[in-house]
Amino acid sequence: MTEQRELKQAYGDQRLTHVIVHDETGRTLPTVLMIPTVMGVQQLELGFAEKLVALGYHVVVADLFGRRFTPVVDKLQAFAAMTELRSDRAALRDRLLAVLEEVRKRDHVDSARIAVIGYCFGGQCALDVARSGVDVAGVASFHGLFDPPGLPAQPIKAKVAAYHGWDDPMVPPEAVVALGQELTEAGADWQIHAYGHVGHGFTNPNAHQMGIDGVAYNEAAERRSWQSLVGFLAEVLG
Amino acid sequence: MTEQRELKQAYGDQRLTHVIVHDETGRTLPTVLMIPTVMGVQQLELGFAEKLVALGYHVVVADLFGRRFTPVVDKLQAFAAMTELRSDRAALRDRLLAVLEEVRKRDHVDSARIAVIGYCFGGQCALDVARSGVDVAGVASFHGLFDPPGLPAQPIKAKVAAYHGWDDPMVPPEAVVALGQELTEAGADWQIHAYGHVGHGFTNPNAHQMGIDGVAYNEAAERRSWQSLVGFLAEVLG
Repeated sequence: MTEQRELKQAYGDQRLTHVIVHDETGRTLPTVLMIPTVMGVQQLELGFAEKLVALGYHVVVADLFGRRFTPVVDKLQAFAAMTELRSDRAALRDRLLAVLEEVRKRDHVDSARIAVIGYCFGGQCALDVARSGVDVAGVASFHGLFDPPGLPAQPIKAKVAAYHGWDDPMVPPEAVVALGQELTEAGADWQIHAYGHVGHGFTNPNAHQMGIDGVAYNEAAERRSWQSLVGFLAEVLG
Repeated sequence: MTEQRELKQAYGDQRLTHVIVHDETGRTLPTVLMIPTVMGVQQLELGFAEKLVALGYHVVVADLFGRRFTPVVDKLQAFAAMTELRSDRAALRDRLLAVLEEVRKRDHVDSARIAVIGYCFGGQCALDVARSGVDVAGVASFHGLFDPPGLPAQPIKAKVAAYHGWDDPMVPPEAVVALGQELTEAGADWQIHAYGHVGHGFTNPNAHQMGIDGVAYNEAAERRSWQSLVGFLAEVLG
């Protein structure tokens, strides 16, 4: 059985409320830190987390915003909050690393076996964790934003996997090529999986509710990227 | 137990000698047509074929050249033979489709469930099979050449997977972007998996013996691409 409980973390004047998704055995396990989309912690991410728990991982779904958004009502607020975090990539990196350290010191977390995965804005965050040079086993981005943080480049220790919809209007082919070059120059062990006729947000069955052209669910890309993630996590956390 | 036997096919004034790799049960099975590298049918391809037989497929390793090359002795002849075939992509397409039809009518081949996979030059051939518009379930290219055939575009029915080393000196990033655009315009269900710090020929432990800069084995890329292929074949032939 999977259980969920809150993990509160003070950060500046904010109170982040992550969600720990775990099995009941209390074992120390390899751990996945999951960074949600712009909408923050939603049922979508918690569902993915439950699937990862079933595979034998301890999962923490991170709250970067210090609040829960209601998707339909709070969409503009969520985008504003994301834009604010994205406007200072050094501060965002520090926030991400603080969350990572909070997770690393938890009971039941095998601190040497942590991967960071993220969706959309969270995919960019996962890449930013790798870009920081911190020692985590792997990072994976699903329809993440690729624009570089504009910070001094660090050697990347984490293995990197990026799952990308080729028709993502926010991430054109030039950005894919640029990411490949950036990760190569940083010495990363990296892989980018691109899917044709696939837009942004392809893992989210409700992506079309965002009402943005090129943002849509794609069942095949979701299935294929998940299958690849399972292999990637087995490789880096196994 | 896996068995091998020859399958001879007259083509023009040539006699192609494919190798059928199969289990002993004589069952009709989903089938993989494998197109080898520039060096033609070698132990490398036969080894991959045996792994596919263990997964439940019937496999035909194609001879496109009408002769067997000895890798060290005949390297220049093999490249000359490949260059000749590549010089007329319409004729090459016709040759590939003739081999495909030969395979399709064989006993033990489930003619509705055929995938074509290839390595290096054979990867280009696999893509050319898809580009022909023929009805096969899937094609997969490993470190294949991406240059388009310059023939009238056809709607692509096959699902396409391409496994690509980002540092492949024969296939620069612009060619990856161009392939993505070409496959999109042809309506293909496609995926391209790119691996960082990986060159041409990454599935071949003896690739360095070619003595060409940027041609080298890469264990991680071989393992990851094989793992993905297994999922791809299960999807398209399952």
